[in-house]
Amino acid sequence: MSVFVSIQLDKSKDEPLYIQLYLQLRQMIEQGRLKPDEKLPPIRKLSEQLKINSVTVVNAYKLLEQHGYVYSRVGSGTYISDNLHNQLHQLEPPETEPFREEEFRLMDQGQIHIRSNTINFASATPTPELFPVEDFKNVLNEVLDRDGGFAFGYQESQGFFPLRESITAYLRYYGIEKTPECIQIISGAQQGIDVLAKALLNFGDCLVVESPTYTGAIAAFRSRGAKIIEVPIEKDGINLEVLEKKLKKFHPKFIYVMPNFQNPTGYCYSLKKRKALLQLAKQYDTLIIEDDYLSELNFSRKKLAPLKAIDHYNKVVYIKSFSKIFMPGLRLAFLVLPEQIYNDVLAAKHTSDISTSGLTQRAFDLYLRKGIWQKHIQYMQKIYKERYKVMSEALENFMPKEIDYHLPEGGLTFWLALPEGCSSNKLYLECREKDVVFVPGSVFYSTQKDSRYFRLSFAAVYPEEIKKGIRILGNTINHLLKNNTKNKKGTNYYTPLL
Amino acid sequence: MSVFVSIQLDKSKDEPLYIQLYLQLRQMIEQGRLKPDEKLPPIRKLSEQLKINSVTVVNAYKLLEQHGYVYSRVGSGTYISDNLHNQLHQLEPPETEPFREEEFRLMDQGQIHIRSNTINFASATPTPELFPVEDFKNVLNEVLDRDGGFAFGYQESQGFFPLRESITAYLRYYGIEKTPECIQIISGAQQGIDVLAKALLNFGDCLVVESPTYTGAIAAFRSRGAKIIEVPIEKDGINLEVLEKKLKKFHPKFIYVMPNFQNPTGYCYSLKKRKALLQLAKQYDTLIIEDDYLSELNFSRKKLAPLKAIDHYNKVVYIKSFSKIFMPGLRLAFLVLPEQIYNDVLAAKHTSDISTSGLTQRAFDLYLRKGIWQKHIQYMQKIYKERYKVMSEALENFMPKEIDYHLPEGGLTFWLALPEGCSSNKLYLECREKDVVFVPGSVFYSTQKDSRYFRLSFAAVYPEEIKKGIRILGNTINHLLKNNTKNKKGTNYYTPLL
Repeated sequence: MSVFVSIQLDKSKDEPLYIQLYLQLRQMIEQGRLKPDEKLPPIRKLSEQLKINSVTVVNAYKLLEQHGYVYSRVGSGTYISDNLHNQLHQLEPPETEPFREEEFRLMDQGQIHIRSNTINFASATPTPELFPVEDFKNVLNEVLDRDGGFAFGYQESQGFFPLRESITAYLRYYGIEKTPECIQIISGAQQGIDVLAKALLNFGDCLVVESPTYTGAIAAFRSRGAKIIEVPIEKDGINLEVLEKKLKKFHPKFIYVMPNFQNPTGYCYSLKKRKALLQLAKQYDTLIIEDDYLSELNFSRKKLAPLKAIDHYNKVVYIKSFSKIFMPGLRLAFLVLPEQIYNDVLAAKHTSDISTSGLTQRAFDLYLRKGIWQKHIQYMQKIYKERYKVMSEALENFMPKEIDYHLPEGGLTFWLALPEGCSSNKLYLECREKDVVFVPGSVFYSTQKDSRYFRLSFAAVYPEEIKKGIRILGNTINHLLKNNTKNKKGTNYYTPLL
Repeated sequence: MSVFVSIQLDKSKDEPLYIQLYLQLRQMIEQGRLKPDEKLPPIRKLSEQLKINSVTVVNAYKLLEQHGYVYSRVGSGTYISDNLHNQLHQLEPPETEPFREEEFRLMDQGQIHIRSNTINFASATPTPELFPVEDFKNVLNEVLDRDGGFAFGYQESQGFFPLRESITAYLRYYGIEKTPECIQIISGAQQGIDVLAKALLNFGDCLVVESPTYTGAIAAFRSRGAKIIEVPIEKDGINLEVLEKKLKKFHPKFIYVMPNFQNPTGYCYSLKKRKALLQLAKQYDTLIIEDDYLSELNFSRKKLAPLKAIDHYNKVVYIKSFSKIFMPGLRLAFLVLPEQIYNDVLAAKHTSDISTSGLTQRAFDLYLRKGIWQKHIQYMQKIYKERYKVMSEALENFMPKEIDYHLPEGGLTFWLALPEGCSSNKLYLECREKDVVFVPGSVFYSTQKDSRYFRLSFAAVYPEEIKKGIRILGNTINHLLKNNTKNKKGTNYYTPLL
């Protein structure tokens, strides 16, 4: 016990006691004063010695464990990690592991160059020929002639005022009535998530995400040292019972959701669940971050208003990206903010990159004002509705009956499930050999290394290729399922999830 | 119409006609030659009189309106603002709290609209007429014609490869030999600082900054829950004795420095201190973040190589911004990374905003390749060397002998000290009454609320205004010092620092 005598906690400090204790224990481990596999004192003992509440010790140990400094053995106690170096590197997969999160994240953004004859159901990003380059070139030049150097000076951190005005007009169309003062321009939705994480999360705070969800959000939240709580998403939205339990227990700072065409599942929240979610946010005094990255691509006749449009308690922070349907490389999006977080978000944006490109903001403002945006959306809807139809029919025709999926009402992706116990990682490897790629489901969970789910996107595939690709995929699955039936032990294909 | 006869536009000038017209109309308003509520001539009439395109007049009027000089009534015309003073002050905080960090941070970036006749020594940002708008417009269009939609797709997170290549050529000129693999493109230096903070700092970690230093860096480090240790900067660089003590005691993750024309002091590190700093970083196994925001503006004959050029132990992370000397609103900068932090930085950049605008990167690449950059730097050097000379002479002529300052060898700012015990906050208030503003020193310290130091910048002031402003400043200081001598108790001006 001798080294623990040196621990000094100061109740008068702003820093919570459990954080103080965590930091001092961490230092002892890093300096080698606590050795690998050495046991930490029992909670009761240490709390008595330090004259603190045992919950404080529990929380400090938990933090150490979350950060890989210790491990616990049930019924035995808490031990210093024996291979600290490996533990701290646990997020990096070894070379042999082919399902690197990074790889799929990049594929999702069309950033990975795959073999040119590969059918790419992984990328959820439109291909360059769909971008309105000529129209945008015209507005760029108009702005340069009009504003000259002013387009390149420092811009107001909150965003170019006329653009914030145009956005209020755009929002009105979706039933959101807000003034330009509530709008913060950001350099893409990812920055929006990151800025909100900065403004809202302190070290050790909790937040809720849908499971599965967008990996970029997980990364931003994790970077703040926050605890991420996963709540399953169902075909009509997040599981409310589980959510309420977690809200009660963890008092999260916010719930991060995508109510329309959720990524990766494509699920939409029912109106009932939308209302219930807002009610829970009010009841448990938490915020909702609504990430709306694609609701323009609605192929159903249902009107799918954003959650923000019925946000009567002012609990919703709305993130709107133009990347997936406009031009991802432009890096432009916006937030609609409830008043109470306005100052914190503005400061976080300023710390992040001072302001978003003035030229981009001014050009996009003109693009909206001239009504070219609406024209472009209609064009994209037409293109994608066709691909969606082709994909739906191909799945209907070529998918074995064992495969479970749900027809989304819009968006760019389908979410499919292999039979229980199957590995979509393995399916991925087989298909890649046949020049068809997609994203295995494990990428969208914060803890799973394999999953029976996988995501197919038609964003970057032409109709005739969609058909061909789905046929290959269907055949591959069929083949594997048959092989598996022959060989019941299942070494080849059926494997327990890791 | 009579006053408009005096307008003279010169098509042979680089400055666009509408900017020329804007500036001349603005001057008439400021000088009271156009009165509140007076109507400006109809667009057609003025364009005929001046023999220019009507679009030029439209654009000039628009600029006046954007900047609060005029207002328009639909169907009636454009009028001089009746309450110009109020309009321009809307962004300024109330009188009772004059030393808001935020206010000065915004002034530093030219984001605050101050009264139009105010001499602005606060902004360290060039004014829009100095930006190479036409040249940049040409490269933008060339890129759009060449790359089409590819300029708008997701870009490689590390940065557009050809730009990273051009940057290695640029770096070679400054004695830094690196491959494109070591370079990370970022959306401005502030993002660079923020991304490095994310990659290198965990909650509770320590880091060292020069004191005083750039506030934007403090904000980013603080946002990570890190402990900031200040080490004083002297005329030849950071205080090495204090630094070594802190390194021993705190094991900081890095030391954040600006070896050339430090912000705010303008000090440059001696070669001896540069070498000693690198040696200390090696000895205490820490990194150095070198923020090079301005070293092109060297007015001395000394060659001031970046620290990175003599970084034989590979301990220096180099941040290079183009904002202060190129176009701040473009949001473009880069990092040169030591190998050991490469993966962490790449992940942090990805989490922050996925990638920097592809269009901006491609256009700037072309701008570098065509050698327009070097031409522009020479132009800026010429402009600023003159202002620097004017400022130096004016300080020599008009500053009371009690004021201590150091002649910097380059950059855009001077750092001055009032006698011990004086408050630059108070001086600021007095000067603002006389329409001269600057940044009080307290802004650049993480803990002080007042300081005897203050920063003067000539980035946004024309030579004749520099002279006038420094004379007013000198007189104000003289007056206050005399008053104070009369009234030894010093309730008026000498006050203990808070």
